[in-house]
Amino acid sequence: MATKLAEATGSPAYTTKVTAMKKRLDSQIPDSLRLPREIVDTAPLDVTGVPATTGLLTEKELAITALDATAVCEKIASGQLTAVETVTAFGKRAIIAHQLVHCLTDIFLEEGIARAQELDEYYKREGKVIGPLHGLPISIKDHVPLKGRWASAGFLATVEVSKDDCLMTSILRELGAVFYVKTNQPQSIMHLETHSMYGRTLNPWNTSLTPGGSSGGEGALIAMRGSCIGVGTDIGGSIRGPAANSGIYGMRPSSKTLPMKDYLAYQFGADGVIASTGPMCSSARDIDLFISKVLAAKPAQIDVSLVPLVWDIPQSFPKKLRVGIMEHDGVVLPHPPTLRALAAAKAKLTASGLVEVVDYKPFKHDLGYDIVRELYFEDGAKVVRDLLKEAGEDILPLTEWVISPPHTKDHDATSLRALRKQRDDYKDDYSDHWNESGCDVVLCPPFPGTANPHDTAKYWAYTAIWNILDYPGIVFPSGLKLEPSLDVMEARSSFFSDADKFNHELCMLLFPIPENRIELATDDAQKMVGAPVSFQLVARRFNDCVLVAAQKLIEGILTE
Amino acid sequence: MATKLAEATGSPAYTTKVTAMKKRLDSQIPDSLRLPREIVDTAPLDVTGVPATTGLLTEKELAITALDATAVCEKIASGQLTAVETVTAFGKRAIIAHQLVHCLTDIFLEEGIARAQELDEYYKREGKVIGPLHGLPISIKDHVPLKGRWASAGFLATVEVSKDDCLMTSILRELGAVFYVKTNQPQSIMHLETHSMYGRTLNPWNTSLTPGGSSGGEGALIAMRGSCIGVGTDIGGSIRGPAANSGIYGMRPSSKTLPMKDYLAYQFGADGVIASTGPMCSSARDIDLFISKVLAAKPAQIDVSLVPLVWDIPQSFPKKLRVGIMEHDGVVLPHPPTLRALAAAKAKLTASGLVEVVDYKPFKHDLGYDIVRELYFEDGAKVVRDLLKEAGEDILPLTEWVISPPHTKDHDATSLRALRKQRDDYKDDYSDHWNESGCDVVLCPPFPGTANPHDTAKYWAYTAIWNILDYPGIVFPSGLKLEPSLDVMEARSSFFSDADKFNHELCMLLFPIPENRIELATDDAQKMVGAPVSFQLVARRFNDCVLVAAQKLIEGILTE
Repeated sequence: MATKLAEATGSPAYTTKVTAMKKRLDSQIPDSLRLPREIVDTAPLDVTGVPATTGLLTEKELAITALDATAVCEKIASGQLTAVETVTAFGKRAIIAHQLVHCLTDIFLEEGIARAQELDEYYKREGKVIGPLHGLPISIKDHVPLKGRWASAGFLATVEVSKDDCLMTSILRELGAVFYVKTNQPQSIMHLETHSMYGRTLNPWNTSLTPGGSSGGEGALIAMRGSCIGVGTDIGGSIRGPAANSGIYGMRPSSKTLPMKDYLAYQFGADGVIASTGPMCSSARDIDLFISKVLAAKPAQIDVSLVPLVWDIPQSFPKKLRVGIMEHDGVVLPHPPTLRALAAAKAKLTASGLVEVVDYKPFKHDLGYDIVRELYFEDGAKVVRDLLKEAGEDILPLTEWVISPPHTKDHDATSLRALRKQRDDYKDDYSDHWNESGCDVVLCPPFPGTANPHDTAKYWAYTAIWNILDYPGIVFPSGLKLEPSLDVMEARSSFFSDADKFNHELCMLLFPIPENRIELATDDAQKMVGAPVSFQLVARRFNDCVLVAAQKLIEGILTE
Repeated sequence: MATKLAEATGSPAYTTKVTAMKKRLDSQIPDSLRLPREIVDTAPLDVTGVPATTGLLTEKELAITALDATAVCEKIASGQLTAVETVTAFGKRAIIAHQLVHCLTDIFLEEGIARAQELDEYYKREGKVIGPLHGLPISIKDHVPLKGRWASAGFLATVEVSKDDCLMTSILRELGAVFYVKTNQPQSIMHLETHSMYGRTLNPWNTSLTPGGSSGGEGALIAMRGSCIGVGTDIGGSIRGPAANSGIYGMRPSSKTLPMKDYLAYQFGADGVIASTGPMCSSARDIDLFISKVLAAKPAQIDVSLVPLVWDIPQSFPKKLRVGIMEHDGVVLPHPPTLRALAAAKAKLTASGLVEVVDYKPFKHDLGYDIVRELYFEDGAKVVRDLLKEAGEDILPLTEWVISPPHTKDHDATSLRALRKQRDDYKDDYSDHWNESGCDVVLCPPFPGTANPHDTAKYWAYTAIWNILDYPGIVFPSGLKLEPSLDVMEARSSFFSDADKFNHELCMLLFPIPENRIELATDDAQKMVGAPVSFQLVARRFNDCVLVAAQKLIEGILTE
């Protein structure tokens, strides 16, 4: 079991409220699904196998929870599964998972089963599904409102029971989806980890590591198979980071293509860089399922901020797909497992002859990252400090880190305009650079390494760079994991940047390293073991359909 | 001839520079096309007929300059016209027009003819056109760069010779277009009139009136038939206002659909409300020609800020088109000619049975207009005052008006975020309102009356409301003009707003009014006579293709 880590704290008033919230959440775990204390206390670092060993899930439930969303929909539509047994299976497993990795913020399985019951009756009566997602259990990130359920914008001061569904959940409900849990996100929703007033979410593959964030509750839950598909959001990597850390699939579509109307936020009107919402799921085809069905509901007719993206995945490419490989961004060198996986992918893609493989050189990712960090909090994060103060909430280290100078300033209109011009110029220059490369897509790391130890995820640029550019990205598993016998970190004496040095030293401390290099305390030696190694594939803005088709082709080559 | 109006002024340094600029412009008029002083001095208020009487244009040139852009392209492509004779005809007429209405800022007909010569040679040699706009003369607004030509962002401090084409003019050039003149825009590019350091552009139909702005040079030039199509920009009505005042066609597409990359501006990075660029032209089909050909060049692949709009004009509608008629916006009642034309259109559309006609009620247009005015200058217009100061340029009355409190403030990041939230909320609420109306398109006034006397165009909301919403709009002529015998203004004692009172009093002062109402000095009695009455048709954001198809259908009904 992972070392006990500090909890979020605050004033007595904060503690009173948060204690009540945690009690409410704990009370939502039915006694029948409560894990014995010893199972929790003696769980191995890798808890993904635990649910199957608890005896709480039937063979059929274990089989159901192994399915991806597409298979779930197919099996329910063809009568091989009922909605009730599907929702029950995922719901039970989600509750078990939560006790191991603290991934949930609201549990309402009975409500989900009641809806599933209605859907089964509809199916029986009408002989058909109510919609393409009939009976599909979907997990939902905390700040995405579901009528009657708890939600927050990442601070105690923003906790509320949602009066209504937001547009996204309303569409999903119309399509037949069933809701049953909401998932954890960090304070401020601006960590690439997941530590909130509800607690700290752990990485299922190694609980001493972070599942990433901010949609880390989703990532951990799906890796635990307590959900096959969930809804996340991403303004700096918050879908892709946790998807990578938990070894699942996640897509950040081009912003303003999927509806975020009425999602909770605490900087409404801030539009220097735009968040995006998208699926986190168990397979590439689930991404297509989710987006195609949501877009078919024509959300742009209701949410006028949306761009009506035509969703039409090409079945082939007019000429051989040109795949750029970016091993590092010139600012921070990724850890050995990431470089190993990318090198293997490059070799396999090249050998296949099915795509054209070229090296992709990054364009001033340090500059782009500086700009996007400044855009996140244009008021110097006064809004964050005010919200913390309002509820007596103490600031967490990663919140402090993300809002601290030099990357945040309290701007006036003139300096803000200059900052946005800098952003626009960067985007223009980057576009020219990308066009000169001739790449259709770029395969790159999603993070400068696999899942980090808690409280260390400070270099977001591998994902955030695509947020400032608004290039869509898909994260998917390489199939590899960190392996001590293969992933050996060489000592380095020169570095690209301070962040590079930090990232290197983190690795030197935590990787298993041969004795002739650096000695480590035995306790630490296994700390990063088991972490999944993931890829990120990126395409130009609004080339979401090209991206989905390219990911399918590339994953096909890599796994054949 | 119109009364002599005040010229733009400034410091001695300003005067020296501007005098040289005006001298340069005047020297670009060849002696062979210089109008005798008496023709200019004794011209009637309506100067549209003057070019044909000068003896400077041949019958063929008069016939060529009567064509729309689509016909020009067809005739050149089929060998009925050469590029040289076409460019020569429009160029000569443009130079004549300029001497009557002061619509140009740069004249380079020789360069245009030289290019036309190359195109003719290509056509002769290859037996085909170089591109779909082969030989088409296109006039260009001052702040839209053309390589080697003068340009400015509306202030002397920003005047420069452009080093390169911008993306738009580069695409048009590739498509075969020929450039020959640039057109006037007002100081700050933020008047709905056209008064700049180069002088004041006059309305061809009645030179005591404004041609509107800020693309007023384009509007006046096209109404004078010195161009059949030109490029304008619109952030508050700057395409639609001048199109309306000059009785031509103009479309403001949804923003970020046509490229504005490298257009000159003086608030780069300001993105609270986004400008749009589009065609001003001689027919509805010219709008389709222009946009379809520019989009076919795939500008979104180069300008990454663009949304890749699919340009596919529906040939019919799945159900009868629902047309809302908005006679007024609840804030300022339009002048009688506008109301007369709308009432006639409503009757005709209803009687046709070909569309469903309903009354469209505006939704808080006063609020929307307040918000958009504040968004125009988020720094309280410091940037404007600095640019004026830099070159010793005096502020013009309409610049002072547009940047004055209460509608401009120097914001900080926090208040700016609140303002943008107010904008987003308004857009959301408006979208719900529009959806409840069930309208596909709304037919409404483009301005609270026909062309105003100079220096009085202060109520932009009939166009600016659609800028904050980013709903595309087409302005097109009703075929009617202000007629003293029909357009009688009733005295009113109560008003919607101060702006309504201003607009009413303007009309009472200037309209011909029966003796039993209000007596007017005879001099003033004819002041607004001859002004074209125009319509504005609007559709939801990104429904540009629906809009173009609907305008065609509606204009067909109205003119049959």
